[in-house]
Amino acid sequence: MIRFDCDYVEGAHPAILERMTETNMEQTAGYGEDAYCESARQKIRAACGAPDAAVHFLVGGTQANLTVIAAALRPHQGVLCAATGHINVHETGAVEAAGHKVLGLPHTDGRITAAQVAAYVESHYADSAFEHIAQPGMVYISHPTEFGTLYSLKELEALSAVCRERGLPLFLDGARLGYGLAAGDVTLGDLARLCDVFYIGGTKCGALFGEAVVITDPALQKDFRYHIKQRGGMLAKGRLLGIQFDALFTDDRYRRVTAGAVEQALRVREAFARRGVEMYIDSPTNQQFPILTRAQRAWLERDFALSHWQTLDGGRDVMRVCTSWATREENLQKLLAAIAAMPEG
Amino acid sequence: MIRFDCDYVEGAHPAILERMTETNMEQTAGYGEDAYCESARQKIRAACGAPDAAVHFLVGGTQANLTVIAAALRPHQGVLCAATGHINVHETGAVEAAGHKVLGLPHTDGRITAAQVAAYVESHYADSAFEHIAQPGMVYISHPTEFGTLYSLKELEALSAVCRERGLPLFLDGARLGYGLAAGDVTLGDLARLCDVFYIGGTKCGALFGEAVVITDPALQKDFRYHIKQRGGMLAKGRLLGIQFDALFTDDRYRRVTAGAVEQALRVREAFARRGVEMYIDSPTNQQFPILTRAQRAWLERDFALSHWQTLDGGRDVMRVCTSWATREENLQKLLAAIAAMPEG
Amino acid sequence: MIRFDCDYVEGAHPAILERMTETNMEQTAGYGEDAYCESARQKIRAACGAPDAAVHFLVGGTQANLTVIAAALRPHQGVLCAATGHINVHETGAVEAAGHKVLGLPHTDGRITAAQVAAYVESHYADSAFEHIAQPGMVYISHPTEFGTLYSLKELEALSAVCRERGLPLFLDGARLGYGLAAGDVTLGDLARLCDVFYIGGTKCGALFGEAVVITDPALQKDFRYHIKQRGGMLAKGRLLGIQFDALFTDDRYRRVTAGAVEQALRVREAFARRGVEMYIDSPTNQQFPILTRAQRAWLERDFALSHWQTLDGGRDVMRVCTSWATREENLQKLLAAIAAMPEG
Amino acid sequence: MIRFDCDYVEGAHPAILERMTETNMEQTAGYGEDAYCESARQKIRAACGAPDAAVHFLVGGTQANLTVIAAALRPHQGVLCAATGHINVHETGAVEAAGHKVLGLPHTDGRITAAQVAAYVESHYADSAFEHIAQPGMVYISHPTEFGTLYSLKELEALSAVCRERGLPLFLDGARLGYGLAAGDVTLGDLARLCDVFYIGGTKCGALFGEAVVITDPALQKDFRYHIKQRGGMLAKGRLLGIQFDALFTDDRYRRVTAGAVEQALRVREAFARRGVEMYIDSPTNQQFPILTRAQRAWLERDFALSHWQTLDGGRDVMRVCTSWATREENLQKLLAAIAAMPEG
Repeated sequence: MIRFDCDYVEGAHPAILERMTETNMEQTAGYGEDAYCESARQKIRAACGAPDAAVHFLVGGTQANLTVIAAALRPHQGVLCAATGHINVHETGAVEAAGHKVLGLPHTDGRITAAQVAAYVESHYADSAFEHIAQPGMVYISHPTEFGTLYSLKELEALSAVCRERGLPLFLDGARLGYGLAAGDVTLGDLARLCDVFYIGGTKCGALFGEAVVITDPALQKDFRYHIKQRGGMLAKGRLLGIQFDALFTDDRYRRVTAGAVEQALRVREAFARRGVEMYIDSPTNQQFPILTRAQRAWLERDFALSHWQTLDGGRDVMRVCTSWATREENLQKLLAAIAAMPEG
Repeated sequence: MIRFDCDYVEGAHPAILERMTETNMEQTAGYGEDAYCESARQKIRAACGAPDAAVHFLVGGTQANLTVIAAALRPHQGVLCAATGHINVHETGAVEAAGHKVLGLPHTDGRITAAQVAAYVESHYADSAFEHIAQPGMVYISHPTEFGTLYSLKELEALSAVCRERGLPLFLDGARLGYGLAAGDVTLGDLARLCDVFYIGGTKCGALFGEAVVITDPALQKDFRYHIKQRGGMLAKGRLLGIQFDALFTDDRYRRVTAGAVEQALRVREAFARRGVEMYIDSPTNQQFPILTRAQRAWLERDFALSHWQTLDGGRDVMRVCTSWATREENLQKLLAAIAAMPEG
Repeated sequence: MIRFDCDYVEGAHPAILERMTETNMEQTAGYGEDAYCESARQKIRAACGAPDAAVHFLVGGTQANLTVIAAALRPHQGVLCAATGHINVHETGAVEAAGHKVLGLPHTDGRITAAQVAAYVESHYADSAFEHIAQPGMVYISHPTEFGTLYSLKELEALSAVCRERGLPLFLDGARLGYGLAAGDVTLGDLARLCDVFYIGGTKCGALFGEAVVITDPALQKDFRYHIKQRGGMLAKGRLLGIQFDALFTDDRYRRVTAGAVEQALRVREAFARRGVEMYIDSPTNQQFPILTRAQRAWLERDFALSHWQTLDGGRDVMRVCTSWATREENLQKLLAAIAAMPEG
Repeated sequence: MIRFDCDYVEGAHPAILERMTETNMEQTAGYGEDAYCESARQKIRAACGAPDAAVHFLVGGTQANLTVIAAALRPHQGVLCAATGHINVHETGAVEAAGHKVLGLPHTDGRITAAQVAAYVESHYADSAFEHIAQPGMVYISHPTEFGTLYSLKELEALSAVCRERGLPLFLDGARLGYGLAAGDVTLGDLARLCDVFYIGGTKCGALFGEAVVITDPALQKDFRYHIKQRGGMLAKGRLLGIQFDALFTDDRYRRVTAGAVEQALRVREAFARRGVEMYIDSPTNQQFPILTRAQRAWLERDFALSHWQTLDGGRDVMRVCTSWATREENLQKLLAAIAAMPEG
């Protein structure tokens, strides 16, 4: 069985494991205060063109999301996001456990718009009972979204402008950011300029684990390490995160490994298109969502693990096919061949 | 500078890194549902003589503490512990952030007694305004304690008996459990028999990171993975934890690597004793607490990183000296020599 | 200006104020442990045919909701309700502040069905990533709903059956329960039999303030006073609540005062119907929701305060008109006359 | 049985009940936005010499404490207070339920000092692991304290100065403030000048219920009504609070009714002194703490309800004797006579 069901089925890019092995018996300070973390922070600041940004390394995405959101909001505030946002559907109520309502908005392929945010805020304060309603306190977006889609630079600029006008911090979940940078027109520099806080996903983009949280808003920078510790996210051997991000931001590795996966995903998309398979979502990144008949699905699942996303009326299934930094060309070839040979739709 | 300041300054036991490297490009399911985790769970259940125990792998100690405590308590309950307990002093109020009061009791070298727990509970219900006071809902102990001391089997049996009589789950923080198993008379089987939940520390005992939470209480077993996810502790590539604990519980490795460190620590203690240095706490484990003059401290700190614990009246300092699974014999020899040569007290 | 905008614009039924005045200088124990509270509890238990129910008096509805829900749920659980439920839209995220996700379901005039609950629960456990999603842990309904509508006895029995089958406590918010008892086929005895916990609203049904929480589920009865105290709901002079509910449950007063208001509301509905005004919702209780033109609205708002509910496409407004235990016949006559004289739609 | 056990055993000052009765059938807006609340706010601002203060009316003390503290702190912060502070011992962990650690300091008769606060803060930041420890984020004091003692103006000025220097809001719990104003040298104007937020207790000082929260800090004023609603403290018929505080701040009533009680308490103190009874605490306010033999206690408890505070070694009991705005001269005379006639110590 070859897995294309998600992008965290292997370990880490070999260069990372090598660096871990080389440095294994070195003695360093704990809790992210070692030289490897510092080096990684500097490389990330440079890559973002943000010399004053705070950079913190957390182990995983849910942890990053709940820590950032809990640190940013006052108790009566909620966080606006697409109803399909990861924080709203796949984190077991972590944001609510930290005391805050998730304010889900209707989405377009996982995205929300500046106009929606503006309208929501306006409507909130227009309600005579507004103090009886959770106050919109920040905006969360994911890029790529949970559907693999991207914000264009223009869309992101509009969101950022609305957020600044309304005093709402803009938080971008970049669990799959590498694939987004490879596929879209938004750069790390744009994110540092337009977001108040975002993170650069490691877990799904070449690392064993780890998310690099970049905070440009000075108010949110203050005391952030307290929040990390309180939420259980301060890794004792913090250097493990520093070593990984240092390796990912050396020799352009973060860009290279994710760009390859996007190129592979587009070949998968083409292979499906050649067979007349419709895509549920038009995704430009490493996640693809073909709509398959039961026979097609069964055919592919004999040899490949895919992820079941949704069943449509009429019995066809939306499946997710993921490539990643670790996808081997030989495995991809097998998948492409199987698609070419699968039953008619 | 050679570090003896804490027990998490190196990476992992080489056998662990080797297994990670060997398995790096294997494809597995995420979130702890892979074969490595299952194998590690089986080995831990066997080592504990607890075939029905639930075993979950979390990344760190604060995360394990807050997840277990939040899962076990109802909102009006607090957790009894030594006032010096890690959850009370060094976790940035993580337990309170999950909604619960930490009920600190006076301690003896970091330990509390069955009698104290019984008296506290009795006194709680004897107060006519008891409903105005947080209800004692569970008991947290650490073993070894934050001072390196241990509960005897007899003490632990007494605590367990009181807890069961009063309906309080007993939770044992084993962040440094390996050193405790090596030095005391309490076994993993005893812990599984006497505690409702405890964890086997990996981070400080040979792993890169990771704590294995063992739950014997069926009520607490229920739905525990939801809690892990909600608190941000469900590692996407969960196998990284499985591989580590599988390696630690293979060939008696967990016991061997920690036993060596305890033996080294006792040699440090002897070296201080030969110089007439008093120990602040009589610790049988890998943490030692010599009381040094300023001159002695300065002498040692030229070449060795130690941890400052406390300053006593009169100007002498309590320092912490830690050995670990990673302490090299050559470095230990240097420390012993420096102790032998340090100024008179 | 005569107010018909809501049902809490006056003080209390005169019989209540009289009892408060008569008993004012009596000395009693605090915190609900006085004889007036005990008497009220007995009368409520009798009215519910539930001799073993626990009855607690809280000051207000949001307080009652958050206290009950926080007491009933474990941290990873959310509460199912109509998306329009008061806890979801008008309590400033109080449930989330206590750590829980509100799981809003599509509604029909403010109601949800047994089938919806069953389907949600089934779908939850059918998801392979169910542990990444907040677990449905209880069901909240309001009766009357926020739209004035009612559950039939049959609907309530079906909901109760599903909840018991699935192990979900059923919680009924009875902020306006008096009006519901007067208008529908559900009795207090039915509620005690079918719900695990519900409350009998005082604030909107004749009292100065106060909600009587009736708990039939023994598990939820346990330690409930701790929760009341912790959430700030334990009134020092608890007798003020006891006196009020004792008066409301004397001489059938609770039923009488609310039945009068329902009868008045139906006369308002008829008056609108005679003018061809459509109702937004078909409400049988003390809240009515006429759809008015701007001219009609302006006409009525010259002399009467109404509540603006919503603006429809085309510019017509849904307005809320409330009667209450305090509505004077002379004021009602004026309103009916104004409706009769208002402009054509 | 005549009650002297606490100061909330009667209803309200008759003038308050009269105003409630007079206004009972008036129609007003809800949620504190009526003219009675506005009038009361103006009178309180005038009494405090604080025209820009925000004034909010809450129902009870625990509610006021938890709402203010939750609104003021960020998640990683705790609240400094005397270890005996009401929030630390008698609110069922309400502050922790809102996510915050209560940082109890050693006390002197219920008081803490500016020097203690300064030392705690300095020590916090001097710890190399300070981010692992809850950050001191505000200071809570009660005045009178739980022991009836008072801060002098000088002590309060010193506390205020330290708090401002360290950026910690100073919050004063005035549940019994009336008695403190009557007995000490601190005025409402001083409180408005020196505290960031405090409350004027109604429940124990002549009202049926109610605490008037006065916020002078603009940062804390912002959005405070959201917090009240979220914590369940926004009374639907808010005018009930407005009417009460309006009556208390009319004709100097708040001062007059509490001053009488203090004068009575001092007569109780003298009566005990004449019998050679030692007081546990030297309280100048309406709570007195005689140390009684078992025989003396039994003698008094035949006719009077007192409150048991503590049992001392040797078997003598510290009892609490409270007067209040409602204490009748005839009852006081009986108590004084009983003290005069009680057995020798």
